[in-house]
Order: sequence, then structure tokens, then C-alpha cells
Amino acid sequence: MKWRKALPVLDWARSYDRIQFSGDALAAVIVTIMLIPQSLAYALLAGLPAEVGIYASIVPLIAYALFGTSRTLAVGPVAVVSLMTASALAPLGLTSVADYVAAAAVLALLSGLVLIAMGALRLGVVANFLSHPVIAGFITASGLLIAVGQVKHLMGIQAQGHTLPEILGALWTGLPQINLATLVTGGAALAFLLWARWGLSPMLRSLGVSSSLAATLARVGPVFAIVGTTLAAWAFDLEGAGVALVGEVPTGLPPLGLPTVDLSLLSALIGPAMLISIIGYVESISVAQTLAAKRGQRIEPNNELFALGASNVASGLSGGYPVTGGFARSVVNFDAGAQTPAAGALTAIGLLGAALFLTPLLYFLPTATLAATIIVAVLSLVDLSILSRSWSYSMADFAAVLVTILLTLFAGVEIGVASGVVVSLVLFIWKTSRPHVAEVGLVPGTEHFRNINRHTVQTDPTILTLRIDESLYFANARRMEDVVLARVHGDTSLRHVILMCSAVNEIDLSALESLEAINARLHDMGLTLHLSEVKGPVMDRLERSHFLDVLTGQVFLSQFVAFQSLRSGVDAKVVAAGAA
Amino acid sequence: MKWRKALPVLDWARSYDRIQFSGDALAAVIVTIMLIPQSLAYALLAGLPAEVGIYASIVPLIAYALFGTSRTLAVGPVAVVSLMTASALAPLGLTSVADYVAAAAVLALLSGLVLIAMGALRLGVVANFLSHPVIAGFITASGLLIAVGQVKHLMGIQAQGHTLPEILGALWTGLPQINLATLVTGGAALAFLLWARWGLSPMLRSLGVSSSLAATLARVGPVFAIVGTTLAAWAFDLEGAGVALVGEVPTGLPPLGLPTVDLSLLSALIGPAMLISIIGYVESISVAQTLAAKRGQRIEPNNELFALGASNVASGLSGGYPVTGGFARSVVNFDAGAQTPAAGALTAIGLLGAALFLTPLLYFLPTATLAATIIVAVLSLVDLSILSRSWSYSMADFAAVLVTILLTLFAGVEIGVASGVVVSLVLFIWKTSRPHVAEVGLVPGTEHFRNINRHTVQTDPTILTLRIDESLYFANARRMEDVVLARVHGDTSLRHVILMCSAVNEIDLSALESLEAINARLHDMGLTLHLSEVKGPVMDRLERSHFLDVLTGQVFLSQFVAFQSLRSGVDAKVVAAGAA
Repeated sequence: MKWRKALPVLDWARSYDRIQFSGDALAAVIVTIMLIPQSLAYALLAGLPAEVGIYASIVPLIAYALFGTSRTLAVGPVAVVSLMTASALAPLGLTSVADYVAAAAVLALLSGLVLIAMGALRLGVVANFLSHPVIAGFITASGLLIAVGQVKHLMGIQAQGHTLPEILGALWTGLPQINLATLVTGGAALAFLLWARWGLSPMLRSLGVSSSLAATLARVGPVFAIVGTTLAAWAFDLEGAGVALVGEVPTGLPPLGLPTVDLSLLSALIGPAMLISIIGYVESISVAQTLAAKRGQRIEPNNELFALGASNVASGLSGGYPVTGGFARSVVNFDAGAQTPAAGALTAIGLLGAALFLTPLLYFLPTATLAATIIVAVLSLVDLSILSRSWSYSMADFAAVLVTILLTLFAGVEIGVASGVVVSLVLFIWKTSRPHVAEVGLVPGTEHFRNINRHTVQTDPTILTLRIDESLYFANARRMEDVVLARVHGDTSLRHVILMCSAVNEIDLSALESLEAINARLHDMGLTLHLSEVKGPVMDRLERSHFLDVLTGQVFLSQFVAFQSLRSGVDAKVVAAGAA
Repeated sequence: MKWRKALPVLDWARSYDRIQFSGDALAAVIVTIMLIPQSLAYALLAGLPAEVGIYASIVPLIAYALFGTSRTLAVGPVAVVSLMTASALAPLGLTSVADYVAAAAVLALLSGLVLIAMGALRLGVVANFLSHPVIAGFITASGLLIAVGQVKHLMGIQAQGHTLPEILGALWTGLPQINLATLVTGGAALAFLLWARWGLSPMLRSLGVSSSLAATLARVGPVFAIVGTTLAAWAFDLEGAGVALVGEVPTGLPPLGLPTVDLSLLSALIGPAMLISIIGYVESISVAQTLAAKRGQRIEPNNELFALGASNVASGLSGGYPVTGGFARSVVNFDAGAQTPAAGALTAIGLLGAALFLTPLLYFLPTATLAATIIVAVLSLVDLSILSRSWSYSMADFAAVLVTILLTLFAGVEIGVASGVVVSLVLFIWKTSRPHVAEVGLVPGTEHFRNINRHTVQTDPTILTLRIDESLYFANARRMEDVVLARVHGDTSLRHVILMCSAVNEIDLSALESLEAINARLHDMGLTLHLSEVKGPVMDRLERSHFLDVLTGQVFLSQFVAFQSLRSGVDAKVVAAGAA
């Protein structure tokens, strides 16, 4: 049982049958066709030679097939992680390609170890601190950065940069060096891909092709662009016209072994590796959970950390770079009928075939085609609607999105995502430091108490009940003193103040001091302080302090009991503006 | 009215009378006698020449008398701020005394500007983020550091250091150079001061002296130690025996004018100035509020920021260093009968007299006596009971105290207090990310719902009610999905899930996504999701989203209405272990 938990393959492999195999095999063929151009393109995006992308799509897939709990997740190089890899390796200032490739492998290795450590320490929850707005803003901004960063390949110019101003500046400077043949090739590929994406599937459906087959054909569109432009480059000697080609790609098995590691490299890469791990994990687990829910299957977050970690370690040991579960490719895998992780292992065999036999054919593939492939793929990541959705829902969420998008575009991916997390946390703390406090009264005919400004309620002139809508802790403790004392000030008919604690989930030591101060000052004014609806865990703690000994009033189980016990007999009815 | 709010002096001065004057004058005499040795000693602690301490006790007091809202706060150099000044100036590596004095004045100036800016921006709330445990731990650790740091003066050796290991190491290294005459002088002063502190007051009271006069005489004890050891040093030529004396102290008015400011100095000091401002403000306002509450007076936090800012600017412009309201001296001022801030202005005149006429007499004052004064003064700051109190109350508070104390002692004051704040915030966020969730049932005979594990309650097998004890936000949103779905899993009699939202003070965009996911998955299982007791502000926001359109169930005003509407008729009674 324990083994089956650690190695999910033991679970599904024992009942593996021919029907499952045929589903897996068909899905593997389609994903392989889709993954070949993607691996080449994402390697280019990460600044790596094309074959590194293929290597990253072989052994890591087998590792995930052994350890992963998702039946349909397709692992490999993805756009955002490739961008983050480029951004992590750029500051190292490596000049030789071999060093750069080794550093990418080290990054994968570190990232894998971080994921395994997170799994072992059950730290998957860390990912929860990436709020939905931060992730959405980050993915959108990354998509924009990636798309703009590929324009140089379409224009056939050199342009380095990792932020929007750097890239746009470099493109502007490089404008005079534009290569017309590259522009035509890239433009044609881009136009074809855009059509394949948005025009092909409706056309096929109108011709009577089933909608899932049409969608799958549209997904493998890049292959036609690659075959077409490769043939064109060979036939018309585009290389002579100045079009950059992929060129010589080594043929053979992925190189197995530990990449050359030096200590300064490790310390420079550990930070980026942690960020890549967390972003990769969040992206992957959300895809895995979405797909699992559709078939009523279950994803184990800690197993997933371990499985992704193993995939990245495998990638680092077999000449690859950081990988994770990809959205588009997993959906294709799912739609094409993948039943078990064996589909991933079969895909790995397909990519191995590509590494052994296909690479010579890639010589004439224009890099502009790969750039067009990337641009079309990442446009689906760009979703600016998160700005309007968060704007209409809450200012704090909007601020987090905006900061994440702007800083990712203008200061780079690492600063962007880190600032988004920090802004989200700071705004959360800021909000909890200024809690909503409602004065409440009894909803007639019930035992329920509600805000006197929103509901028609009964109150008693001798009793003030305040419902504090937040845990009491150091950041809001002194403010509570001010709020209570300001409300009480000058109200001469008052005899009792009740703090209704239904929303108080915690009272820390600072807040306890403030409660004691409130109690003492109210006592000086001749008023009694009571608490109602104190929750079990909070009450346990109060009982360990001496507050209950000094409290001038009582702690009531419910607000209704408190109100009934203390009321003077003089009733008042408060009709809220707009209330029935 | 507006002027009187900005200049509180306009308020009290118009009705100033002879009775108030006599109270203020007596208090001023006593505070002056107490403040002369303290200013010399704290200047020594800050690494500054003795006269700087006196200058810092003249113009700043007048500034506070004009702008302060506390009637009895006594402003001037204090121990913790002096320690922080030494710690801020040490890394500058200044070798000339004049440069060091100028840098201290710049620090006061910057600190004053920071306080004024905080007042203008109404940022006094920032101080709320210093929790009670962090402040208590910081003050205790600072007191220990200060006391240990003065031991070198008692031994007559050189020993630099700003952390406990540094100081102890330097003391150990310097042990062979110990000066016996210094040790005897310092030891005698220390013994006398300890007796004056703990033995004198009970003795005087047993002789029939009133307890407040006895306490005041005990407070001015240091003056006798100073006079005694100064006379001894003159009579027995202690200087010839190797005892360090205060020596030549310039006579005259404080030097007025802007200290020499260079830009690199400003940027090095702005961080420490902010920390000194916040710590000084927190220390000062808590003393001011404690004393004001005893006489039913009111402190305006924003005015206090401005008044302390003005005092520090005044200190910086008159050859002083950072000042704030001191605890011991304010209590003495209060007990001696100070009625208005005029007492502070009169104290300033006393100190001015000291600067003009007393300084020649200070030549023979041994620095060991000042060190003994400091040690006895700061021992009252050391209160390790905060460790046991927080230990028994809550682990988070205990962790904050422990981290603050240890890091202040072993890494320095700035790192210590900053780490305390960060640890408090991180633990708060960590707790809110793992909220308490209670399954609740109806308390029989009421409309009140309580935890089924703590109370005897009625439930219905077709209804699951979960009370989530926390605002729903990104850090706990996904966890909520897991908690709800794990509880529902396998319970085949269930038809309805109610989330009781009485403690949910906020639902952010990430949590909204999670609620939608919970709703959809429950729907797939044939279950209906309902909400109850959603607060006004949260409901306003939900109504702006499309969640209410997709919600399979209803939003009920109260949990009781929800339960009554949905119950199947089959009742179950749950008896909690230990409940009646």
C-alpha cells in the first residue's frame, strides 16, 4: 500500500489492458507530433540549442509516468518556464554554448531537488501564497514578454533584453538590419499558424469533421508550418538570402550524466530554481486538477511535487532544462484519449525517435518559423480580462494584478512575481489592521443579530453591541481601543458594552492587553464589558490568561442570551435606511 | 480652533495660574536633578561627549512643551534610543569626534523629519505593527545589551562591540588590562545605586517619610553617587591612579545651526532614523497614554508624532542627538506634581543652567560612575517574564519574543526588532492560511449553532454545516476546497452543504474561484451548496460577481433559517465528549 502510494505506476500498471493501450498510443502519436516543434521552439526561447528541447522531452516524461498521480498530464518544456530559464541564465554572463547548456541542466537539477524537498516537507502549501490574480497577471505578462521577444527572429535581427523596454529598444535599434527574406518566411508561417488556430477548426467542422478531430488537427498545425517552411528553405536556398536556420543538430541519445557543477553557479541559481519550481508546480497542478476533476480522478499534491521533482532531476541528468506539466499539450493528450501515464512514456519513445532519426531533417528549418510557433502558442496565455474582473471585484486584487503585470514587463519575471506576492500579503495585512466593526441589533422574531445600518433591528439604549469583523491581533489591537472608546464617549444612557466575537478567530497577546485596557477604561466610566459568542479555541486561550478574572462583565454563549440577560426593558427599534 | 489643535500650548497657557506654576516648578527641579546625570550617562552610551547629552535636554524640551499633547511627558535622551544611535553611527567608521557629533545631530534631524512626515501622512498606525511581545522582547534585550556594554567602564578597559558575543569577547580579551581603582570606584557607585534603588525607599518610609517623597528621593539617588565619586576623584587624585574621568566639558549655550550634511551620510542614516523614530514613538506614546489615562486626559497620536518630530529637529539643530519621551523621568515628573508642559520648559532652563555653570565641576566625574548609573537605570527595562507569559498564552507570541530577544542580543538592535516584526507577520499569515473549521449543530432550545465536538447539539444527516473561522483569501482558498471535499467524500446520506460565514470577513478573488470550484464539484456529486450569515460588505461584493448566478443553493440570512428550511425531518443528536 505504501509502495503504491509512492509509485502510482504500481497502481495502474497491474490492470493495464489493450483498450487502455490503444487510447494511450493514439494520444502519444498526436502529442509527439505537437511536441517536436514545441520542444525546438521553447529551447530557442530559453536561449538553448534546439536538441536540448528534445532531450527535455524524453527522460523527464518517463520519470513522470512512474511517479505522477495525474493520468493525463503531459510534461515537458513550457513557455513560461523557458522564459524564466532564459532570465535566470542571462545574468551569469556565460559566453560558451556548452557552459550555457550545462547551467540549464544544473538549473533543472536544482529545481528538481527543490520540488522533492518541498514534497518531503509537505510544503506544497507555499504555492497557495501565489494568489489567483498574481498568477493570472504573471502568466499574461510573461506571454506578452515572450511574444515581443520573438519578434527579432521574425525580423532576422539581433536584439537582447529581458524586460519590455530593453526588448523594444533593441528592436528599434536593430530595425535597419531587418532581413526581408526572414520577414516573409516568418510572416507566412505566422499567418498560416493564426489561420490554423482560429480558422482551420471551424472550416473542418463545416466540412463535417468531428469537432474533437478538428481541434486536434488545429493543434498540430505547427507541424505543417515547419514542414512547409523547411522545404521552402531547402528549395529556394533561403540560407543564402540571409534567413537564419536551425542548422546542424546532433543526432543520438540524450547525453546522460551529472552536469559540471561549480559552487558559485549553484548559489547564483538556487533562487531562480526555487521560483521556477513554485511557478512550474502551480501551473502543472492546476492543469492536472482540472483534467482529473473531469473524470472524477484524484491528484495528490505531495506526490505531484515529488513526480515533478523527479522529472526535473531526470531532465538535468539527461542534457535537458527545467520542465513542468503543460496546459495545451495535456488537453490534447486528454482529448486524444490518453488513459494512463503510459501515454507519456510512449510520447517519450516518439521523441527519442525524433532525436535519433529526425534531427538531420531539421537543418533547413528557419528559426523564424519556430518564433512564429511560439508567438501563436503564447497568445493564448495573454488574458487581460483579469484586469477588468479584478477591478470590478476588489481593489486589492486589482492592485496585485497591476503590480505583477507592470513589474514583470518592466523589471523582469522574478521581480514581477515576487512583488505580486508581497503586494497581496501587504494588502491583506493592511485590511486586517483596519477591520470592519458593525453595531448590531436583534432581527425581530429571531435570535439573530445584524448591523443596525443595514437591517431593521431592535436595540436597547443601555446596551451597545459591537461585532468586530476580524481576529484581534497586534496590527489592529490599539485601533479597537480607539473604536470602542470613541463610540462610547458621551453616550450617557449606556450601561453595558458587549463585544460580539463570532468573527474573532484569534486574540493574541497584544490584543489581550488591549482588551484589558478597554475593560479598565470602561470600568472607570461606570460601564461593564461583556463578550458573546467566543469560539472554543479562543476561549481555551482566554482561560489560560487572567483576563477572565478582571473582566467586569460576563462571557455569554450567544449574543441572544447576552441581550436577554442585560436588557433594561426599554426597547428601541432602529430602521435602517433602505431596509424593509 | 485649528490653531489650538496644532499648538496645544495655546490651549493650556491661557488658563495657566500660580497653582499650576508651583506644581510645574517643583517637578522641574526634581526632573532637572535626575536628568543631569542621565544626560551625561546616555551621551556616553551613545558614544558621544558628555555635553551632547545636556544639549539634547534643552531645546528639544521646549519644542515638546509647545507642540506636545501630553501634560506630563518628559522628553530627552533615553537608554534604548542612545543604544540605537551608537549602533547606527558605528558602521560609518568616523574617526574624528567632531564628525561623530555632527552625524548624531544629522540622525536626530532625519528622525525628526521622519516623525513629522509620519504625522502629516497619519502613519502613526505603522507603530501598531510592533506587537506587544516584540516591543517587550526588544526593550528587555536592549537593556541587557546596554548593561553588559557598560561593564568595560567599570573595569577601566577598552572593549568595542554591538552584539552580546562581540562585547563579551572584547571584555574577555581586555581582562588583563583591568584597572583596580576604576573597579573600586565603579563598584562602590554601583553598590550605592542599587541600595538607593531598592533599599533607600523602604528605609525612608520606615522612618516616616511619605511614600511618594521616598520614591522621588530614591530616583535622584544618582546625584549623590555623582557628587560622592567626583569628590573622591578630586581628593584622592584618582586620575593619577588610572581612573577615566569625564574631563574638560565645554561651557556655554548649545551650538545652534544646521550640522554639516553630506549626501552619503544621509543615505546611510535614513534607515536607522526610521527605526529610531518608530521605536521612540512607541515608547513615548505608551508612557504618555498611561499617564494621561490616570488623570482622564487625552493624547492625540498624530500631534505626538509632530511634537516628537519637532523635538528631534530641535535636537539636531542645537548640537544634540535623537530624543524621545522617557519612562522613568515622566513618572517622576508626574509624581512630583507637574501640571502642564511648562514643567518641561522649566526643566530645560535648569539644564541650560547646568550647561552654563555646572560643566567645570564635571571634570572629576569618573565615567565608571556614569556607567553604574546606566546599569541600574536599564535593569528596570529587563523583564524576562514576557517569555513565560507568552509561552503560556500562545506559541506565536512566544516565538516573536524569543526571536526578537535572541537576534537583538546576537545580531544587533536593528536586525532584532525588524526580525521580530517579520516573524509576527509571517506567523499571523501562516495561521490565517490554516484556518480552524468547525462542523456545527443547533444548540437545543436556541437558534444558536455550535461546534459538534464541544457542545451537545442537534444535526440532520442530510445537512453538513461547516463554520469556517477565517476570512477566505488566496492563502487558504485551495485548502478550503480540500477540507470541504474531504469531509463530504463518502458520506452518502448528505444532500446539502452549508458554509456558515459568520467569521468570513472577506472573500477575495482567489477564494471566489475556490467557492465556484467547490460549488461545481458538489454539484457533480449531487449536493447543493448554501451559504449562511454572509456579512453585508462580503455580500455586496458577491453580488458584483457572477457567483450567485451559478450557486446551486441559496444564501440564508441566518444559519437557523438555513437549517429549518433544509432539514429532512430526521433528527440526530450529537453529544460532545465532555459536554453536558
